[in-house]
Amino acid sequence: MSDKYTPVPDDKFSFGIWTVGWAAQDVFGPATRAPMPADRAVHKLAEIGAYGVNFHDNDVFDFDDPETVRDAKIAAFRKALDATGLKVTTATTNLFSHPIFKDGAFTHNDRDVRRFALAKVMRNLDLAAELGAGVYVCWGGREGAESGGAKNIQAALDRMKEAFDILGAYVTDQGYDTRFAIEPKPNEPRGHILLPTVGHALAFINELEYSDRVGVNPEIGHEEMAGLDYAAGIRQALWHGKLFHIDLNGQTGPRYDQDLRFGAGNVGGAFWAVDAIEEGIANGQYSGPIHFDFKPPRTEDDDGVWVAAAACMRNYKILRDKVHTFRSDPRVREALEAARVDQLTVPTLAKGETWASIKDLTVDVAGLAARGMAFERLDQLALEHLYGVG
Amino acid sequence: MSDKYTPVPDDKFSFGIWTVGWAAQDVFGPATRAPMPADRAVHKLAEIGAYGVNFHDNDVFDFDDPETVRDAKIAAFRKALDATGLKVTTATTNLFSHPIFKDGAFTHNDRDVRRFALAKVMRNLDLAAELGAGVYVCWGGREGAESGGAKNIQAALDRMKEAFDILGAYVTDQGYDTRFAIEPKPNEPRGHILLPTVGHALAFINELEYSDRVGVNPEIGHEEMAGLDYAAGIRQALWHGKLFHIDLNGQTGPRYDQDLRFGAGNVGGAFWAVDAIEEGIANGQYSGPIHFDFKPPRTEDDDGVWVAAAACMRNYKILRDKVHTFRSDPRVREALEAARVDQLTVPTLAKGETWASIKDLTVDVAGLAARGMAFERLDQLALEHLYGVG
Amino acid sequence: MSDKYTPVPDDKFSFGIWTVGWAAQDVFGPATRAPMPADRAVHKLAEIGAYGVNFHDNDVFDFDDPETVRDAKIAAFRKALDATGLKVTTATTNLFSHPIFKDGAFTHNDRDVRRFALAKVMRNLDLAAELGAGVYVCWGGREGAESGGAKNIQAALDRMKEAFDILGAYVTDQGYDTRFAIEPKPNEPRGHILLPTVGHALAFINELEYSDRVGVNPEIGHEEMAGLDYAAGIRQALWHGKLFHIDLNGQTGPRYDQDLRFGAGNVGGAFWAVDAIEEGIANGQYSGPIHFDFKPPRTEDDDGVWVAAAACMRNYKILRDKVHTFRSDPRVREALEAARVDQLTVPTLAKGETWASIKDLTVDVAGLAARGMAFERLDQLALEHLYGVG
Amino acid sequence: MSDKYTPVPDDKFSFGIWTVGWAAQDVFGPATRAPMPADRAVHKLAEIGAYGVNFHDNDVFDFDDPETVRDAKIAAFRKALDATGLKVTTATTNLFSHPIFKDGAFTHNDRDVRRFALAKVMRNLDLAAELGAGVYVCWGGREGAESGGAKNIQAALDRMKEAFDILGAYVTDQGYDTRFAIEPKPNEPRGHILLPTVGHALAFINELEYSDRVGVNPEIGHEEMAGLDYAAGIRQALWHGKLFHIDLNGQTGPRYDQDLRFGAGNVGGAFWAVDAIEEGIANGQYSGPIHFDFKPPRTEDDDGVWVAAAACMRNYKILRDKVHTFRSDPRVREALEAARVDQLTVPTLAKGETWASIKDLTVDVAGLAARGMAFERLDQLALEHLYGVG
Repeated sequence: MSDKYTPVPDDKFSFGIWTVGWAAQDVFGPATRAPMPADRAVHKLAEIGAYGVNFHDNDVFDFDDPETVRDAKIAAFRKALDATGLKVTTATTNLFSHPIFKDGAFTHNDRDVRRFALAKVMRNLDLAAELGAGVYVCWGGREGAESGGAKNIQAALDRMKEAFDILGAYVTDQGYDTRFAIEPKPNEPRGHILLPTVGHALAFINELEYSDRVGVNPEIGHEEMAGLDYAAGIRQALWHGKLFHIDLNGQTGPRYDQDLRFGAGNVGGAFWAVDAIEEGIANGQYSGPIHFDFKPPRTEDDDGVWVAAAACMRNYKILRDKVHTFRSDPRVREALEAARVDQLTVPTLAKGETWASIKDLTVDVAGLAARGMAFERLDQLALEHLYGVG
Repeated sequence: MSDKYTPVPDDKFSFGIWTVGWAAQDVFGPATRAPMPADRAVHKLAEIGAYGVNFHDNDVFDFDDPETVRDAKIAAFRKALDATGLKVTTATTNLFSHPIFKDGAFTHNDRDVRRFALAKVMRNLDLAAELGAGVYVCWGGREGAESGGAKNIQAALDRMKEAFDILGAYVTDQGYDTRFAIEPKPNEPRGHILLPTVGHALAFINELEYSDRVGVNPEIGHEEMAGLDYAAGIRQALWHGKLFHIDLNGQTGPRYDQDLRFGAGNVGGAFWAVDAIEEGIANGQYSGPIHFDFKPPRTEDDDGVWVAAAACMRNYKILRDKVHTFRSDPRVREALEAARVDQLTVPTLAKGETWASIKDLTVDVAGLAARGMAFERLDQLALEHLYGVG
Repeated sequence: MSDKYTPVPDDKFSFGIWTVGWAAQDVFGPATRAPMPADRAVHKLAEIGAYGVNFHDNDVFDFDDPETVRDAKIAAFRKALDATGLKVTTATTNLFSHPIFKDGAFTHNDRDVRRFALAKVMRNLDLAAELGAGVYVCWGGREGAESGGAKNIQAALDRMKEAFDILGAYVTDQGYDTRFAIEPKPNEPRGHILLPTVGHALAFINELEYSDRVGVNPEIGHEEMAGLDYAAGIRQALWHGKLFHIDLNGQTGPRYDQDLRFGAGNVGGAFWAVDAIEEGIANGQYSGPIHFDFKPPRTEDDDGVWVAAAACMRNYKILRDKVHTFRSDPRVREALEAARVDQLTVPTLAKGETWASIKDLTVDVAGLAARGMAFERLDQLALEHLYGVG
Repeated sequence: MSDKYTPVPDDKFSFGIWTVGWAAQDVFGPATRAPMPADRAVHKLAEIGAYGVNFHDNDVFDFDDPETVRDAKIAAFRKALDATGLKVTTATTNLFSHPIFKDGAFTHNDRDVRRFALAKVMRNLDLAAELGAGVYVCWGGREGAESGGAKNIQAALDRMKEAFDILGAYVTDQGYDTRFAIEPKPNEPRGHILLPTVGHALAFINELEYSDRVGVNPEIGHEEMAGLDYAAGIRQALWHGKLFHIDLNGQTGPRYDQDLRFGAGNVGGAFWAVDAIEEGIANGQYSGPIHFDFKPPRTEDDDGVWVAAAACMRNYKILRDKVHTFRSDPRVREALEAARVDQLTVPTLAKGETWASIKDLTVDVAGLAARGMAFERLDQLALEHLYGVG
C-alpha cells in the first residue's frame, strides 16, 4: 500500500544500523532475533524508503575482528551503500559495550582506557570521513556512576573537555569537516550519567576549544526519562544554534529506556517534537536528517522489525502533515493571537528604550490580572488536528 | 540542648523569610497557620542560630500595600535585622503569586506584564542593595506552559535574555555589585518551565550580555523532581564557576514539589550534596551562605515550624561532620585509590602529547576489561560514615 | 458549531462542581477566578450538554455556614438541578480542605477528628440520598504522612476499615442504596497517601463488612502519577466487578497532580482509557456516568473554563468514535488474530484437563521461541486510528 | 574484621543464587564477569554468613541441559548445601529469559507457551519440595505489554488466576506445603506489567481458589520504581496477613530497575523498611528469611560481588539496631505521644457505640484545627537515629 505518507529519500529519513539490527538481548534474557549484518540492514532500509544510516564502528565489524575481517565487513557495508544509494549521514563509536568500557570511556577512572577510547574514536572518525558522515554522535552511556564517591565530577568534566579538545584538534588537523553531536541521557546503564540533559550538554560545549564544531543530539526518550519536554529542549538547542542531529523514538515517562518506535509512547509529545523540528528546518536552523533511534520490541520477529521501522517514517510524515495543517489553519492563527503568542516576539523594550523607560511604569494591574490567556482553546485545536477531526 | 551541632552565625546558615513564614495553603486547602510578619521571622531565626535571610519583596510588604504601609513594614524588617545582626544575604522578587503573573513575568505573552515585571524587579533591586544583599535570586516559576502551542519557546528565550540584559544594565548603571542567580525548576506550578534544570540555565547564561554577573541557584528538590543527581549538578555549576547560591531542602523523587526540611527525603543525596558544597568551599569556588528553602509541612503549628528550621541547620552540621570524617578516613583514601578515582585528575594526554601520541596506541585490553572498579567497597564506606558506625 | 461530537445528555457526561468551579489558587498564588456558586455551575454545564454532576458538601455551602445559609444554598442548587434536568450522579465529602483535616479524616491521629469526619459524611450521605446520588466517592487526600513514623499504617488501615464499616451500616440502616467508590492517589497533598493505587484499594475492599457496597473510582492522573497504565487499572477493576465510578482528566507522568482537561496530557493513554471504559459498558460491567475531574488551568478566565469543560466531553466522543472504528476494522481483527490476542480468552487447560494433563507436556520450543508476536503492526493500526488517517 | 554487625545464620539472611551469580550483561553490553555455578555461590554465601538461598531452576542448570547434565548440576548444588548447611528457603522458575517466554508465560498469548510454562513450574516445584523450599516466588516479569491492544487484560487475569488455581491444585495433590509469593513490578522488561504493585497482587489473590496458599513478595526497587513507599506496602501486606517473602535491594526512584545492594539508593526508605519488617516479625506476622535480591554493579569484579553481598547483610543489621534503638528511645515515645500516633490504635467508636452515637456529634473544631501534629520533631529523631548521632 502506497499513499502520501509513504517515505521517499527526499524525506531524509535515516536509521542507526543498530536499531533494526538490535537482536533484543536485555538484562533479563538473551537475544530473540538473529544478528543482522550491516549490509543487510542497508538493503532493507533502502527498500522501505530510507535516505541514510548512522553506524557505530562495531555495528559493521566486531570489536575483536582481525584487520582482514574488519576490511571485508566494511567493504560489504560500502558495497550495500553504493548499491542502494543510501547515505552515511552520521557515525559514532561504540564506547559502552565491551567490558573495558564498564566505567565509561572519556571519563573512565583508568587513564589507559581513556587513551584507548580516544584512539578507537579517531580510527572510526577516519572511516566516517571516508564514508561521508558529516556528523559524529557521542553518546557517553557509561560515563557516570552508581554512587557519589566513585566519580570526581569536576575531574570528569575536565577529562570530557580534554577528550573533545583532542578530537577537535584531530579532525581539524585531518581536514575533516566533521561536527560532533553530544547525546545526553540522565541514567541507564549508569545510575547517573554525566551531562544528563540537553541543557547540561549545551553548557558544557561552551567550555570547549572547538566549540563551534560541537552541538547536541537530543533523543526523545532520554529527555522524557527526566520528565522534560522534548520539543522545548529542541527549541532551546535551536536557539543556541546547536541542534546538530536528532534521535527520534518513543517513551512513556520516567522508567527504563524504552526506545519505542517514533510515534508510540507520548503521542502528543511527538506532535510537538515534529512542530519544533519543522520550525528549525523552516528557519534554516536545522538541516540534518530525520533520524530514528529505536529498538523493535523483543517480542517481534524480523517482519516486525521492518513494520516498526517503516512506521517510524510514516508517523513522521503523518505528523508533519498535521503540524503544517495546524500552523496554517486560520482558526489556529486567531487562537494564537487571542493567546498573544505572537506578542512574545515583540521586544519588551521598544527601540530606543532603556531600563529607565520602564522603571516607573504604571500598568492596568487589575485589567491585566483579569485577562484570560485563552490557552485551552488553542491547545484543543492542536489536539483536534492531531486527532484528524474538525 | 546544645551540642557541637548547634548552629552559630559563623556557619552562615540562611533562610528565606517565606520558608518559616509559609502559612501552608495549598491546592486542596487554605492556610493552617497565621501569616508571619517578616520581622518576627527575623527575630526567631536569630534565636535559633541563623546568620542571614533571603526575602521576596512581598514577604516584607503586600503587593497592594500603599507606600506608607510599605515603608513601615520595611522599617520594621530593617529594625529586626539591626536588632539581631542578621544579614540579608540574598533577595528576590515575587513574580508568581499575583494573578497578573499567571503566565509568567519576563516571558509572559502580554508585553505590558513583562514591562511591569521588570519595573517590579528594579524597584526591589534598590531595596536589596540598600539592605546589602549581594545575590539576587530569579526563580521563574510561572515562565512556562501547560501546552505546546501556548509559548513560542525561542521567543521566550529571547525575552528572557532581554530581561537579564536590561537588569544587568540596570545594576551596572546603579553601581550595585549585585549578582544574579537563576533558579531552575522543571515543572509546577506550570506544566513545563523554561530553563528546567541547572544545565539549561548554565547554557542560557552564556548568551547574556552581563553573563559574568549571572550564575545559578540549584535547589535540591527541583533537580530531584527530574530524577537528577543534585550533587552532580552542584559540581557542574562549580566547574563552570557559576555556583552563586544554593537552595537546600528535601524531596522524594519525581512528584510534587515537597520542600521538606533539609536532611529529610533523599538522605543519601543530602550527604553527597554537603560533600559537593564543602568541596566548593574548600576550593574557593563557593563563598555564599548555606541557604535553606523549605516549607514546614501543613500539619505543623508554629512550634513545628521552628523545630523544622532548626533541624535544617543541625542536619547540615551533622552531615558536614560526616563528609569531613569520610574524606579524611585512611580506609576511604585507600578505597578511592583502589577505585582509581584519583587517576581521573591526571590528564589523559601527558604534557607534550597530542592526538598523534595515542592514535596507534595498544593497551592490554583483556587486563583492563577484567579489572574491577571497587566502587562497592568505597560506597559502603560512605554509607557507614552516613550511618555513623565503624 | 454543532457536529457529531457535540455532547448530549444521553452521553451521560458528568462533572464535579469543583472542577469548573475551581478558582485556581495553588501553593504559589491565590485564586485568579471568582468563586462560582454551585447553581451557576449547574446551569452552565447543562448549556454545554452535560448529563449530571458530582458535588462535595462544601461545593454547595461553606464549612462554617449557619444552617439557614446552608439550606438556602442547597435550595438554590436543587432549583438549578430541577430547572436544567441535570442529575446528581454522585456525591462526596470535603475531608481535606479545612485545617481540622490536616492529618486526614478517617485515619487522623486525633480520634475526635475521626469521629467528626464520620458525622460530616453521614450528614452529606443524607443530602446525597435526597438528591438521588447513587454513588458516593471517597477520596482520602490527606490520609497519609510525609514521614515514616508519623502514621501507624496497620492501625490506619484498621481505622479506615472501621470507617467504611460504620458508613456501610449507616446507609444500610437508612435504607439508602448508596454505593461507595474509593478514589486512590499515591501522593500530594501528603508525601505518601494510604491506598495509593487502584490495586491497594481493591485489596482493602475485600476486608470490609459491606464490601459489596464498595468499589473504586480510578482517576487517570492519579494512576499516571505512579507511572501506571490507567486502562490496565480500569480493566483490573472491571475484572473484580468493582468499577463503580471513573474520574477522567489529563496528566503528563510522575509530577504534581495536573488535572488537565480530558484528552490533554497522555493522548495515547486517553485512547486506551476510552477503549477500556467502552469494553466495560459493552460487557455490562460499567453503568455509571462518564465523569470528568479536571481543573481548568490557572491561566484561563471564565470563558476558558467552559472551553475546557466542553472539550473534555468532545474529546471523549471523538475517542469513542475512534475506538469503535478501531475495534470494527477488519485489518485490526486480522492483526489481533495474528498477534494471538484472541487465543488468550481460551483456557489454558481444555475442559476435563487437570495439571496431570500437562505435567509431562512437550512442545515445539524452537518453533514457539522463533514466532514473532506481531504487536507492532497492531499498535501501528491503533495509532493510525488515533491519528484519523488510513 | 568482625563486629556486632557481622552476619550469622541466626540472622536468617538469604540470597538469590542469581544475585551474586549475575554476570552483568545488560541491554548495552555483554557480561563483564564469568558465569558462577550455583554450588560456588552456595559455598561463598556460607562463608560470608548467609543462612539460605533462593534459586530459579535455570540458576542451577540450563534451559537446554540434557537430563544427565541437569541431574549432575543439581547434585553439585545439593552437595554444596549439605556441606555448608545453607537452607533452600525459597525457589522460583525462570519464565522470562528464554525467547519462548518473550510475551510472558502464564499470560502469553500463545496457549502452548502457557501450558509449557505450567509444566516447567510443576517440575521445579518438585525440586523445590525436595530441597525443602517452603515458599515459591512467582515474578511475572514478561507478563505484560508495550502497547494497549497487545494484551486482553481481563483475559490475562483469567489466565493468571487459572495458572495459580492449577498450581494450587498441584501442590495440594502432591501434599507439598508450598506457599506461593507473587512479586509485583510495574514495568521493565515490559512496558507495563500485569499486577504492577503490591496492591494489585493482593487484590488478585482474593480471587484465587487456593488463596490461603498465596501471598506477596514485595521488592523495594519495584515499588519505588512507581514512587510508592515500600514500608507502607509491607505494612499493608502484613495487615492482610499476606507477607510471605521479601526482596530487599536499593533503588533511586522511578527509572530502570537498579537492584542496588540493600542500604544503597533510598537510605531513609531502608530504615523504614527494616522498621516495618521488624514490626512484622515482632507481631508474628512475618517469619520468612531476610532476603536480598540485588545485582552487583557491572563495574565490579568477583571481589566486588562479595563486598556488595556482605554489605547487604551488614546494612540490615546496622539498621535493625537503629530501629530498635529508635523505638525504645524515651524521647521517641514522648514524640509519638505528642503526635498522637498511639491514638490511632484506639477504635473510633467506643465499645457499644454505633453510627448513631456520633451522628450529631459536636467537637471543638477551632481547637482541633489549631493543634499541630508535631511530626517534624518525631521525624527528626528518626533521622538522628539513622545518622547515629544524639
